[in-house]
Amino acid sequence: MTPLNIPSGLKDEMRLWRRDFHKYPERGWTEFRTTAKIAEQLAECGWPLRFSKDFLRAEDIMGRDIDVGKEKSRAMAQGADEKLIAEMGDYTGLTAELDAGREGPVLALRFDIDCVECREAKDERHFPAREGFSSVNDGLMHSCGHDGHAAVGLALARLLMDERKRLCGKVVLIFQPAEEGVRGGYAMARGGVADGADYFLTMHLGLGRPTGSVVCGMGGFLCSTKFDAGFAGVGAHAGAEPERGRNALLAAASAALNLHAIAPHSGGATRVNVGVLRAGEGRNVVPPAALMKIETRGEDAQVAKYVYGRSMEVLKGAAAMYGVSLTVTKQGETISAESDAELAAAIAEAARASEGVTRIDEYGKMAGSDDACWLMERVQRGGGKAAYIGIGADSPAGHHNERFDIDEAAMDIALSVLANSALLICGRKS
Amino acid sequence: MTPLNIPSGLKDEMRLWRRDFHKYPERGWTEFRTTAKIAEQLAECGWPLRFSKDFLRAEDIMGRDIDVGKEKSRAMAQGADEKLIAEMGDYTGLTAELDAGREGPVLALRFDIDCVECREAKDERHFPAREGFSSVNDGLMHSCGHDGHAAVGLALARLLMDERKRLCGKVVLIFQPAEEGVRGGYAMARGGVADGADYFLTMHLGLGRPTGSVVCGMGGFLCSTKFDAGFAGVGAHAGAEPERGRNALLAAASAALNLHAIAPHSGGATRVNVGVLRAGEGRNVVPPAALMKIETRGEDAQVAKYVYGRSMEVLKGAAAMYGVSLTVTKQGETISAESDAELAAAIAEAARASEGVTRIDEYGKMAGSDDACWLMERVQRGGGKAAYIGIGADSPAGHHNERFDIDEAAMDIALSVLANSALLICGRKS
Amino acid sequence: MTPLNIPSGLKDEMRLWRRDFHKYPERGWTEFRTTAKIAEQLAECGWPLRFSKDFLRAEDIMGRDIDVGKEKSRAMAQGADEKLIAEMGDYTGLTAELDAGREGPVLALRFDIDCVECREAKDERHFPAREGFSSVNDGLMHSCGHDGHAAVGLALARLLMDERKRLCGKVVLIFQPAEEGVRGGYAMARGGVADGADYFLTMHLGLGRPTGSVVCGMGGFLCSTKFDAGFAGVGAHAGAEPERGRNALLAAASAALNLHAIAPHSGGATRVNVGVLRAGEGRNVVPPAALMKIETRGEDAQVAKYVYGRSMEVLKGAAAMYGVSLTVTKQGETISAESDAELAAAIAEAARASEGVTRIDEYGKMAGSDDACWLMERVQRGGGKAAYIGIGADSPAGHHNERFDIDEAAMDIALSVLANSALLICGRKS
Amino acid sequence: MTPLNIPSGLKDEMRLWRRDFHKYPERGWTEFRTTAKIAEQLAECGWPLRFSKDFLRAEDIMGRDIDVGKEKSRAMAQGADEKLIAEMGDYTGLTAELDAGREGPVLALRFDIDCVECREAKDERHFPAREGFSSVNDGLMHSCGHDGHAAVGLALARLLMDERKRLCGKVVLIFQPAEEGVRGGYAMARGGVADGADYFLTMHLGLGRPTGSVVCGMGGFLCSTKFDAGFAGVGAHAGAEPERGRNALLAAASAALNLHAIAPHSGGATRVNVGVLRAGEGRNVVPPAALMKIETRGEDAQVAKYVYGRSMEVLKGAAAMYGVSLTVTKQGETISAESDAELAAAIAEAARASEGVTRIDEYGKMAGSDDACWLMERVQRGGGKAAYIGIGADSPAGHHNERFDIDEAAMDIALSVLANSALLICGRKS
Repeated sequence: MTPLNIPSGLKDEMRLWRRDFHKYPERGWTEFRTTAKIAEQLAECGWPLRFSKDFLRAEDIMGRDIDVGKEKSRAMAQGADEKLIAEMGDYTGLTAELDAGREGPVLALRFDIDCVECREAKDERHFPAREGFSSVNDGLMHSCGHDGHAAVGLALARLLMDERKRLCGKVVLIFQPAEEGVRGGYAMARGGVADGADYFLTMHLGLGRPTGSVVCGMGGFLCSTKFDAGFAGVGAHAGAEPERGRNALLAAASAALNLHAIAPHSGGATRVNVGVLRAGEGRNVVPPAALMKIETRGEDAQVAKYVYGRSMEVLKGAAAMYGVSLTVTKQGETISAESDAELAAAIAEAARASEGVTRIDEYGKMAGSDDACWLMERVQRGGGKAAYIGIGADSPAGHHNERFDIDEAAMDIALSVLANSALLICGRKS
Repeated sequence: MTPLNIPSGLKDEMRLWRRDFHKYPERGWTEFRTTAKIAEQLAECGWPLRFSKDFLRAEDIMGRDIDVGKEKSRAMAQGADEKLIAEMGDYTGLTAELDAGREGPVLALRFDIDCVECREAKDERHFPAREGFSSVNDGLMHSCGHDGHAAVGLALARLLMDERKRLCGKVVLIFQPAEEGVRGGYAMARGGVADGADYFLTMHLGLGRPTGSVVCGMGGFLCSTKFDAGFAGVGAHAGAEPERGRNALLAAASAALNLHAIAPHSGGATRVNVGVLRAGEGRNVVPPAALMKIETRGEDAQVAKYVYGRSMEVLKGAAAMYGVSLTVTKQGETISAESDAELAAAIAEAARASEGVTRIDEYGKMAGSDDACWLMERVQRGGGKAAYIGIGADSPAGHHNERFDIDEAAMDIALSVLANSALLICGRKS
Repeated sequence: MTPLNIPSGLKDEMRLWRRDFHKYPERGWTEFRTTAKIAEQLAECGWPLRFSKDFLRAEDIMGRDIDVGKEKSRAMAQGADEKLIAEMGDYTGLTAELDAGREGPVLALRFDIDCVECREAKDERHFPAREGFSSVNDGLMHSCGHDGHAAVGLALARLLMDERKRLCGKVVLIFQPAEEGVRGGYAMARGGVADGADYFLTMHLGLGRPTGSVVCGMGGFLCSTKFDAGFAGVGAHAGAEPERGRNALLAAASAALNLHAIAPHSGGATRVNVGVLRAGEGRNVVPPAALMKIETRGEDAQVAKYVYGRSMEVLKGAAAMYGVSLTVTKQGETISAESDAELAAAIAEAARASEGVTRIDEYGKMAGSDDACWLMERVQRGGGKAAYIGIGADSPAGHHNERFDIDEAAMDIALSVLANSALLICGRKS
Repeated sequence: MTPLNIPSGLKDEMRLWRRDFHKYPERGWTEFRTTAKIAEQLAECGWPLRFSKDFLRAEDIMGRDIDVGKEKSRAMAQGADEKLIAEMGDYTGLTAELDAGREGPVLALRFDIDCVECREAKDERHFPAREGFSSVNDGLMHSCGHDGHAAVGLALARLLMDERKRLCGKVVLIFQPAEEGVRGGYAMARGGVADGADYFLTMHLGLGRPTGSVVCGMGGFLCSTKFDAGFAGVGAHAGAEPERGRNALLAAASAALNLHAIAPHSGGATRVNVGVLRAGEGRNVVPPAALMKIETRGEDAQVAKYVYGRSMEVLKGAAAMYGVSLTVTKQGETISAESDAELAAAIAEAARASEGVTRIDEYGKMAGSDDACWLMERVQRGGGKAAYIGIGADSPAGHHNERFDIDEAAMDIALSVLANSALLICGRKS
């Protein structure tokens, strides 16, 4: 193949986009500014757009508890175009489609765009802080690299539009909201954004691998369920009448410990995380309420079911211990998936043609979850092929850590691998 | 004695004041609106005032982490007089002194004015909600009766001013901030507000006793220490690299359980409360930080020291368990105290002369803590007498509960007992 | 009154008895050797005896799970008279009655004789070890002073028999088994051993008070319930199939922590103790079973009910958490009681006439529980008077500690106070 | 190859041996009766023996806390030959060597012989109970199939001796003590029993696989460390002076929960098991001591180190929380190992020639640990090949469960696979 040449100006621009996204991180379902910025760029280079409101269905949406008005105001205060904000309605994310005008395969590529609820490091040792693009949204941070994903997506859009004469078939770009918490993937898949695709690609930066490493087809994703557990007890004066209280905080503390102590499973890896615990109101009040944000994972559906089932037992037991009531609300869910080996082989070929690639694996195991699995499964069920590509990126800290930061050179590799893959799949056979 | 007659108009006004305070509850050190309203009323009936900024010393202030500008703006938005807000400076609370112009004893009376951090019930079964004066400040509530204390203080001020010709000596009214969390009492005592007093009185409504019951001299207050404990760990992706995290949430959960499991003491009652626990950032992040708001109590200094000492061991052990670091910050402290029996006997006489009183106890044990003890101890050390009066008040729920509500008729009794006591102490012997 | 003179030979003998009992401690319901030794001594000085088998009823007996044959063999191997062992049947303890032959009041005195399940210190710093009379029964120890109680009882028997000409009415000595775990008192009371008594006395050595201190009438005993909680789960290979287990050990660990974390009560002191926990079978097996020996206490019946009720919630919740089944079996129970002030005053008179007494309190609060309360309540309900006497005794360590050891001089004081009290009550008014 | 024919009489005898071993289970290092029985049989068919005392070294022995005299007496009471018991000295286990007298490879085969500390089901649904060969040693049970291993070893010895004319080289049979708790393997390996072997085989029955299934070369064994953790606190009267105690039971309960809550590792499976917890002495004593039997496992050396390291932190933290002291004693340890693929292929050939085999896998992952890894590693390091063979066996319950029971038909398969493998390796090439 004749690999695509990436203009260095585009690389520079990609970095600027990434840093802009990084500075204004938005949590799942609130990516109004990010969506507007993406829309702006895509429109500018001529991609026809569809906003999420046109295909997402309310009944498919999990874990969305936001104040739309407030978030839109914030987005506009942070530079989002007012008209686009109005146009996009209440949902974030969008798709864009390029029809080459020549018969050929349909290729869908997905980029996730939301940030993590995590407070970013502010000192000079942290590159984004040193360079002045660390998060201005307190408690939010692009500590999973989706800022890079979105930027690579934009650069790819520009590149493919420039090279559209070399293409046949169609290319669909999916900018997905709310990957964190595995919420958006389900809604996007059910919204049909990848239906009809012959090929589906998505990519993740980092993954603990060094810059230069490419895994062409990942699998072994953990099934995951995200849910909130609330305990409602009874407040009381902690000094004067402690016996009249029903302590929701201690119920939650006991639940948290015992949730993490759920026995592992011989059928595969399991994970439990009580990521957030908020309990109590005043120092001298027996805490009447507690909320926990929890996720459980399992290497396959059966293992995942075991962990989730055990966690329900633990929560119910903890509630009974303290005579408090329990409410559980599902907030997100994803399945497992495997990349198609044949497609992975093609990506390996594309990777070999890409600059900066020092190591290629055709298969690699994912240690975590990704709701791209819903899209992969949908495409595969429809007869298409899907692959999840890992693009190594040096980082001073692990994902979701306050010091996470992707090596921007990895974005060049990602762009190159995706562009070459697109060319392999949708390139005109002349 | 000839008991004071309380005009029914004053009783009505007292209710209006109480409901106004109730509607705009302010947590410790932020009682700008309450202080302004009190200042307004006192000034109107001629009491010379001193704001806290004139006697409080920065080094005596615990547990004050507030945004003064924001709180003052809120106070003004909620009706506080702009000029008074400016005048009072950064501290809340005030004192007022009436000099009868005739030789006689100095009597100091203290009223606490802050609210509890507790969310108020909003349904119709709750009297303040039904009558439209439930809290408009979310998460804050007068669920300990200090709204009533402040209102009784204002009514007493009016009454004493009207009857000033029957008085000799001086009467000092102390409107104290930040009793919840036992913070303000220490600062007020060290600020000298009760120095030189021959007699010191304070009063609490409710205490689990029915309307009509009066305890003339309470004692057995629990010594208490309030402190925050923070754990700092390391965040990590909970699915992909759980082993790289240092879980502050589990350290806190473990600490909370084991703090509450601290063994009781044969030397007297103990209390431990982890009133608030906030941990974690995102559902899929190993929680890097946790904060607990804690209080320990003991029936005497030795028992209190035991509980506090054990709690430090538990916190350090929990930190070691999870490899996280621990920070402890003291936020409040109070001692124990006993009422003087002789003064209690005088109050009993005053109570017998008061309408609505159906039961009088000269001594009663306090189940909780009150930082009035710092003022009692200061007066007693200076050779004066002090008494803490319990005024029973029917309530549908215990103190600090979202349904706490004092029977307003108890305020009439409180006013009457205090006024008659003041007359007994400072009345002209003609 | 003319106080009784205690021959120094009797004091020496009392020490020998005490040390003999100390060396052969026997846990509740297995005091076969102790009972035989007491019977031997009493018979020798002429007291008619009744063994427990003649009055105890099977349905009144709690917490008795013993191998009678094995315990009797052990008792005989440790010097118990074979004939007496046969004669006493399956139950331990006895009563003895001295009828003065002259009309007068009936006085019952109770001595408890069992030991604690606690391992005794063996080094030279420990007096019983140094003097060669430390426990030979592994895991058992007289660490609550009942060895002294039994010895004082025997010395009193000798003294009263010698002085019987000065007496009128009747004296009944009750040697009670199984006070630890509050088991024997209920059965003895229901067996009628104190029925008909006009006066009832019992005495405890130590109680954290120094030698020379006498409390004439104690009260405020904690109500207590003793029970076993068993969890039955499912074993599994902990490495190969951990998910197939149902972990009874973790259920018990969770229960233990949360039991100790039960909130205190404003109505009075509470206590919870998980004294014993035995769980699991092999290191690499998910523990299928766990047993906990638990006691709950409360300062009055209502508080005790609260603690017991909460503990049931905790146990059920813990079982639900781990999907294990729960069995609770009551093993002992006692109520609260108060000494009669009038009788306490008489004892104070007797104490004043006793050598070595340096401090006399007519009332004192008991920090723990004692099943003598069942006997006190029975006598008081029958119209008699009861008193529980505290006899201070220096000790290098607290009760139930491996280094507990009573100052033997306190036994002289106990003997003197009891003898003088008996003389005051049953002395001939000549 | 011409497979070996197994006489049906030998199959019957093998069942009798297995049931005999099953009835008299002996825990690690106390297998005196089992060793004697094995020695008797081997001697009878002419194998020269070496008892463990001749090669085990004291410094290599972990987790051996036994009363040799008592165990030997028990063994003799249960039918062990007095002379053999004397001869074997203090250590259990033995090796036997058959020299074919013709040049050829050295083949070592290892059989483990100890039982699990687990209480056997006694009802009729349990086959060993129904057939009258369930455990007579209370709390001990062959619930891991080592009874079958020993019996297969004896049958193989008989078979090979009968067929010794078809063999060349040498065959060494290793009957290893104390596999449970991974103790004996290290000592046997260091004792040199497999040194010089060209081939090493060992076999495990069951493993959750059905009868007929054979895995020729297993790998992925979990590294494991076994250790005891003891907490020493201070006893006190739980009612009277709870504050004077230092509660070792609560320290252990807290440790147990937090040990099981150690985060998993992205590098591979982990396991933690607190298999046994014994704490406290008497119901009303603050528990002064606690003992936990713990094991940690990890899929490779690094993961195992992580889990062990975290468990030390948890234990130290729990000790600090309760002010108790901690003692950790290592009781066993094993490494990971992999079977040699080439040898596995040969075993597959042998399996194909064996009756009853319905499924053959050349590789399989072990879910647990086995200290045969020490022997495998020793042989491989010496240049030999090693394989660990899994022989499926239907069982009504998992390993270490009270209802575990191997399908005896699986023993026939094991015998056949091992005999044919031996023939493949040491058969004369004529």
